[in-house]
Amino acid sequence: MPIRVTVWSENYHEPREPDVRRRYPDGIHGAIAAGLAERLGERVRVRTAVLADPEHGLSDKELADTDVLTWWGHMSHEDVADEVVARVRRRVLGGMGLLVLHSGHYSKIFRALMGTTCSLNWRDAGERELVWTVAPGHPIAAGVPHPLIIGEQETYGEPFGIPQPDELVFISSFSGGEVFRSGCCYRRGKGSVFYFSPGDQNYPVYHNPEVRRVLANAVLWAAPAGGVGEPLDNAHTPIRW
Amino acid sequence: MPIRVTVWSENYHEPREPDVRRRYPDGIHGAIAAGLAERLGERVRVRTAVLADPEHGLSDKELADTDVLTWWGHMSHEDVADEVVARVRRRVLGGMGLLVLHSGHYSKIFRALMGTTCSLNWRDAGERELVWTVAPGHPIAAGVPHPLIIGEQETYGEPFGIPQPDELVFISSFSGGEVFRSGCCYRRGKGSVFYFSPGDQNYPVYHNPEVRRVLANAVLWAAPAGGVGEPLDNAHTPIRW
Amino acid sequence: MPIRVTVWSENYHEPREPDVRRRYPDGIHGAIAAGLAERLGERVRVRTAVLADPEHGLSDKELADTDVLTWWGHMSHEDVADEVVARVRRRVLGGMGLLVLHSGHYSKIFRALMGTTCSLNWRDAGERELVWTVAPGHPIAAGVPHPLIIGEQETYGEPFGIPQPDELVFISSFSGGEVFRSGCCYRRGKGSVFYFSPGDQNYPVYHNPEVRRVLANAVLWAAPAGGVGEPLDNAHTPIRW
Amino acid sequence: MPIRVTVWSENYHEPREPDVRRRYPDGIHGAIAAGLAERLGERVRVRTAVLADPEHGLSDKELADTDVLTWWGHMSHEDVADEVVARVRRRVLGGMGLLVLHSGHYSKIFRALMGTTCSLNWRDAGERELVWTVAPGHPIAAGVPHPLIIGEQETYGEPFGIPQPDELVFISSFSGGEVFRSGCCYRRGKGSVFYFSPGDQNYPVYHNPEVRRVLANAVLWAAPAGGVGEPLDNAHTPIRW
Repeated sequence: MPIRVTVWSENYHEPREPDVRRRYPDGIHGAIAAGLAERLGERVRVRTAVLADPEHGLSDKELADTDVLTWWGHMSHEDVADEVVARVRRRVLGGMGLLVLHSGHYSKIFRALMGTTCSLNWRDAGERELVWTVAPGHPIAAGVPHPLIIGEQETYGEPFGIPQPDELVFISSFSGGEVFRSGCCYRRGKGSVFYFSPGDQNYPVYHNPEVRRVLANAVLWAAPAGGVGEPLDNAHTPIRW
Repeated sequence: MPIRVTVWSENYHEPREPDVRRRYPDGIHGAIAAGLAERLGERVRVRTAVLADPEHGLSDKELADTDVLTWWGHMSHEDVADEVVARVRRRVLGGMGLLVLHSGHYSKIFRALMGTTCSLNWRDAGERELVWTVAPGHPIAAGVPHPLIIGEQETYGEPFGIPQPDELVFISSFSGGEVFRSGCCYRRGKGSVFYFSPGDQNYPVYHNPEVRRVLANAVLWAAPAGGVGEPLDNAHTPIRW
Repeated sequence: MPIRVTVWSENYHEPREPDVRRRYPDGIHGAIAAGLAERLGERVRVRTAVLADPEHGLSDKELADTDVLTWWGHMSHEDVADEVVARVRRRVLGGMGLLVLHSGHYSKIFRALMGTTCSLNWRDAGERELVWTVAPGHPIAAGVPHPLIIGEQETYGEPFGIPQPDELVFISSFSGGEVFRSGCCYRRGKGSVFYFSPGDQNYPVYHNPEVRRVLANAVLWAAPAGGVGEPLDNAHTPIRW
Repeated sequence: MPIRVTVWSENYHEPREPDVRRRYPDGIHGAIAAGLAERLGERVRVRTAVLADPEHGLSDKELADTDVLTWWGHMSHEDVADEVVARVRRRVLGGMGLLVLHSGHYSKIFRALMGTTCSLNWRDAGERELVWTVAPGHPIAAGVPHPLIIGEQETYGEPFGIPQPDELVFISSFSGGEVFRSGCCYRRGKGSVFYFSPGDQNYPVYHNPEVRRVLANAVLWAAPAGGVGEPLDNAHTPIRW
């Protein structure tokens, strides 16, 4: 049975900025979806959803049909409805996998799940990013070159206001000297969360075959082995033994 | 310079329930404060605050005078004002230490900082709790007997809906067979958070000298070595090198 | 392509003790291998090896044909040749998965990979073990009952002299009151290591369908996504950028 | 009572290489010891020991008088007697703090405690190292500038063949683009271990006041709160409850 993936994006830049549209004619979500389909074939069933869709394309029904959700947002974080965020969070804590991408670090859903500021330092100077693997046995790093080279990128720098990852897979450096924990794994409730920083509207990062490999590996890692159910809850328990 | 500790409690049970008042004539907060003073002497300056105080005793000014805050709540979680929770969270992310105690697992502040349900299984059957040290080199475990025996206690059981601790110090068992991660360390932003589960209004746990030792150790561990400042925030950074 | 599993056991008790032989007529290794085959079918190709085999059944050629190795030992830890241990360690650091079972906690290979004493407290009193899941989203816990009940077992107790696991999946309690970190995940070099404590020659634990489920899940988790190669090594690196 | 610190160094380069002697007229150990005394004053009692001393200056008696040991080695790793390594390891597992510095990554003692290759990539090209804090609430980072700038340094690069640290405090970048986990905390047995990579015989790193601050912070962090005793060991335990 294929893993059901929903690729979500705010789709803010694409209709407004011609150069972004040229770079991502099917949207950032389209490029991400194409990369997953290309890498994973019949192992996944991919659909896309955007902010403008009814309920942002994340209705109860649509989430119930999703095993792994990928999240890209930048300008519209505050436009995401709180009730949709609560619904997504509930689904993650119930077992759904979540991939948070690039500027999604500051999305409501990531901040709600992490509990910290999720803030970072940044500049947009077309610097070269090198993504180094620090967990060579982790499945998300399988087959990924060391370093993965991204010619031009927005720069993200520490301190990154996140909890220490349960497993840290990648650390990036930028030509300006910054470092960034660019690949971070978390278990939260019954769900698995992976944050991956490379990717921006101003650079063709989601066409990079090695970035696509990372995302594909991450979908496999985050897919719920035990299915998705209800989040944990308080329960009064009798003495049983 | 002494560590400035604020011991906070909702103080719900004490005025309403004679047996709790008999057990904790100075309130649960009073017993915790006395234990810290007893163990740490001039290394700390302890004050107490309760829900009924103006701004719950956690005004900007009072928080600015606090290095480590301990939190006990049970019936009144929802009565804690959201703006006070936001203020405390901000102070923790800026460096203040936070000790969350027992039923404080379900407080707004703990849930906001953890991002998960923080739920658990429970029953109140006067069972014996054994607190086992699993990190014998951790400073919070210094001098603590293995196991620390609590004759009668409310039972807490897994699954405990928390992120995996950065360092797990204690695991408890109960006579009914349950286990519980009873001593959990987290770094969040610039602050350090310790959750410790033993302690209940119906049992004299905060008079136990070994429980007091754990709390004293935890205050020393959570005290901000680098002082308390602003939480991390996004920042645009120039190229400097 | 199936995961190639080698199930290793010292096979000390079986030929010497009739009741162990009755319990495990095909050896402890036989029962473990049967459980994996039963649960995983064509996803694995399982073979067994024992101490008495030439090179303990772990020659270079045999290891080169192994993706995941499971290790059971008790009386004969010191009889395992150091060069075989070095070879297995090299293969793990190069990417092979390793499952260390029960009294294997004190094997040369586990101690070499952990760097600590790997010691524990124990008694053999036929106590009931309850295996509680503390990482409900971890793939090794998929489908495992909470708690997993083992009617009679050797008791293992903390402190367990291991490094804090990268991910802690299970904690056990015993009727005598002890707790034990019974399911522990580690990444070491390019390889993944899982320690699982239930299982003993004196109890039919490896016939338990839920224990078999855990071992099957663990084989899938530990299988090297990126294949097995050489361990990491020091390297002089030119400036490349 | 002051923390008793032993600063150990192989002292290989200093007597052989005039420029190293000029840089470190009292030896690398002398510079490290001076830095600790300067930063910590009466909180520590510092002595030094070198490879050429009887029993390398690490006799049973000398170790019994040591709360925290710092280790610097490079050319002479293999000349350190195995029995001294075993003795130091035993003392660490019993509670002594250990700071492993720079090329000490490949010392027998660090490799024995980590269980992995502890290998890395390197070159000596006088590159600029930036040490970024990723755990701003950790006591070892207290007061350390972000980034800490070291004008010229040997370059160390990932993959660093270590277990994932219990707490990762610093990540460095180098002008050549490499990244390195340069500040890593581990609990091992009852002892605390900190690895810190900046520091080399060819650069005056141990005269840098901010590097000295890190080392001083690390001594405070690693000092055994509960004293030093015997390592954990297997023990047969009766039923007590």
